[in-house]
Amino acid sequence: MSQKNNERYSYENSLNLFARAAKIIPEGIYGHQNPAFVIPGASPYFADRAEGGYFRDVDGNEFIDFLCGYGPVVLGHNHPEVENAVRKQMAKGSCFNHPGELMVQLAEKITSLVDLADWAIFAKNGSDVTTWAIRVAREFTNRKKIIMAKGAYHGAHAWCTDYPGGVLPEEKENILAMNWNRIDELEKLTATHPGDIAGIILTPYHHPTFAAQEMPVDGFWKKIRKICDREGILLIIDDIRACFRLDIHGSHEVFGIKPDMICFAKAMANGHPISTAVGRDRYREAAEAVFFAGTFWFSPVPMAAALTTLNILETSDAIPKMKQLGMRLKNGLEDLGKKHGYNVTVSGPSALPYMTFDDDPDLYHIQVFCREMIARGIFLHPHHNWFICAAHTDADIDYTLKTADKVFPIVARELGA
Amino acid sequence: MSQKNNERYSYENSLNLFARAAKIIPEGIYGHQNPAFVIPGASPYFADRAEGGYFRDVDGNEFIDFLCGYGPVVLGHNHPEVENAVRKQMAKGSCFNHPGELMVQLAEKITSLVDLADWAIFAKNGSDVTTWAIRVAREFTNRKKIIMAKGAYHGAHAWCTDYPGGVLPEEKENILAMNWNRIDELEKLTATHPGDIAGIILTPYHHPTFAAQEMPVDGFWKKIRKICDREGILLIIDDIRACFRLDIHGSHEVFGIKPDMICFAKAMANGHPISTAVGRDRYREAAEAVFFAGTFWFSPVPMAAALTTLNILETSDAIPKMKQLGMRLKNGLEDLGKKHGYNVTVSGPSALPYMTFDDDPDLYHIQVFCREMIARGIFLHPHHNWFICAAHTDADIDYTLKTADKVFPIVARELGA
Repeated sequence: MSQKNNERYSYENSLNLFARAAKIIPEGIYGHQNPAFVIPGASPYFADRAEGGYFRDVDGNEFIDFLCGYGPVVLGHNHPEVENAVRKQMAKGSCFNHPGELMVQLAEKITSLVDLADWAIFAKNGSDVTTWAIRVAREFTNRKKIIMAKGAYHGAHAWCTDYPGGVLPEEKENILAMNWNRIDELEKLTATHPGDIAGIILTPYHHPTFAAQEMPVDGFWKKIRKICDREGILLIIDDIRACFRLDIHGSHEVFGIKPDMICFAKAMANGHPISTAVGRDRYREAAEAVFFAGTFWFSPVPMAAALTTLNILETSDAIPKMKQLGMRLKNGLEDLGKKHGYNVTVSGPSALPYMTFDDDPDLYHIQVFCREMIARGIFLHPHHNWFICAAHTDADIDYTLKTADKVFPIVARELGA
Repeated sequence: MSQKNNERYSYENSLNLFARAAKIIPEGIYGHQNPAFVIPGASPYFADRAEGGYFRDVDGNEFIDFLCGYGPVVLGHNHPEVENAVRKQMAKGSCFNHPGELMVQLAEKITSLVDLADWAIFAKNGSDVTTWAIRVAREFTNRKKIIMAKGAYHGAHAWCTDYPGGVLPEEKENILAMNWNRIDELEKLTATHPGDIAGIILTPYHHPTFAAQEMPVDGFWKKIRKICDREGILLIIDDIRACFRLDIHGSHEVFGIKPDMICFAKAMANGHPISTAVGRDRYREAAEAVFFAGTFWFSPVPMAAALTTLNILETSDAIPKMKQLGMRLKNGLEDLGKKHGYNVTVSGPSALPYMTFDDDPDLYHIQVFCREMIARGIFLHPHHNWFICAAHTDADIDYTLKTADKVFPIVARELGA
């Protein structure tokens, strides 16, 4: 695929299809892919196909895909080796009464890759494993309270969602919130609830929506570990977003975190549906006490995809390549911003970058910027971090920066510098 | 595939693989596929491949598959039309930033098939949709309490699981339980909690584990509907187990139920991972208020499988065929039981039958019966209902009954008639 260069994109087929969808699907498109979350009317609503680092929408518009299905696509869409492994397994069956040997192989692989992982358990959704992990913490400690960071996303379940619809106060009453990087707030919570806190669930770095990403401050994770040890609190790392994109051994290695349990999903199977939680041996008994089941969880198909994806991530230059491409994108965008009179910051790890304009409280600048980039074949989300995949190329970054050089002035014309 | 006829099966490879699994996976195999739930040591633990109505385990033992992956496999494993649709979609991509047209087509299909369905919403797990449905009921009614039947399975989430591990009292305190078919108990609950009950979630018929299935008594569903209307309670039908196996328009049509919402999963995509909830227009606003999202939920791959599966179920003789094969199995087993001095009952709809010995409180008789059937190539679960699929044949039923004729006397020798 290649980007159309000559004209701004339009989205008639997306809008027509959305009109059909709105009749028979709540919100037409619900959840994180709801068009209201991107830029209504100025972004595709429906995808048609994807290959490598690109996708095409239902209007035939082609894009460099810097969202990668919100993260799962790490080697590129339709990766030949991954898809071969998937097709090979599918020919033997997809849905059984028993797991296959692949489950054992995958658990062996993950426990060998991730230092603290003495065991692994598989599911489908990120929410499946985050919710199960806090239940394991409660079972182990015989305590109720869970601490999370304000604005963090751990899934759509009632205990952690920011949306109030259909959530009972009872489902939130044992959840305590701290602001990211605020050890003082954590200390206050542990002092206020001594002996009541079962676990703390945090992402390796903070990746809220509608805001810049935040790295941990110096010493953050050492202090967290110390507090957890002192108070008997389990440290659960939700590494679903970054998964193995930053480090084949897990993002906690990048940040020097010593977790008790980790949740992974997203990129581990290059787009095929699987999630996993891993933990230390001392939590195995508690893990075994918390019932965990789903009809499709033992399907060997995404396990075949995961094994192949992890092997490629481990043995290829995919991870350093994503980091390096992301650095080029970050530096290029920050330089171009300056050139056009803006202070922009590309935050987060470079393989999962997100750009904000420094003085843009209503996010209008980033919205116009992304709208115009999207209209020129570069899919950048205005409110959610972006993803580099290993199929992206230096030419994709060049084209993106060349386009940004045209788009910053459009933002300036529309909103003022 | 065909059954080996000459010898009892053994499971060395399963046991060896389980020893590997037990080192690095909690319980080795957790959840519903935990070997402890079937017959430890006397049943395969790991599957190798499957085709049509048969599967092969990792020891090379071949079985008539009367569990069908716990229900999803309805047309037979590796069904050519379904798998072609899946492969065709996979070649275009599996994981996108946006849904595809297939989501709209599938919602249109389901809302046209299911009478009450003015809208449909998709997820991965059965638990995803049952939990979301009760949240919609709470949102709509602004009430907290949910009634369910004792022993019913609505997924692994804290509110509905029977297992206490990691479950807080707060997560159960708004769940009320009635015994199946006991309208008097429901009346008592509504009298005790007037104006507090948001919804009642029930399966179309009762399919507990470790017990015979129970059909609704005469007038049950009419009375339920009347009580729901009188009290302003939403009636949610959990049709995940039977799904479209009994009726292409939903099991509620078989039983004359008038639900407000229905949850489907299992058989709708012949083994590919997808679940759905449907509802009436009056609940759309509440549905839109309850956030619902999962990374992999908009994947068009299982949607392609679902569209093809539903089309085949609608236009072929699959559903009457499963019913008729199930009737032959039911009548045959009950007759053979009598011949060998047992009263056995095959309960439930004939396409999802389950056999119990009438005087078998510890389930030893059904365990020995299933163990010996399994050892002869017929996979029957001792504690969970069975599934007929459209790939099963009259010859499979003949062989099953011929084998049962040999196995009943073995049960008698081991346990007495």
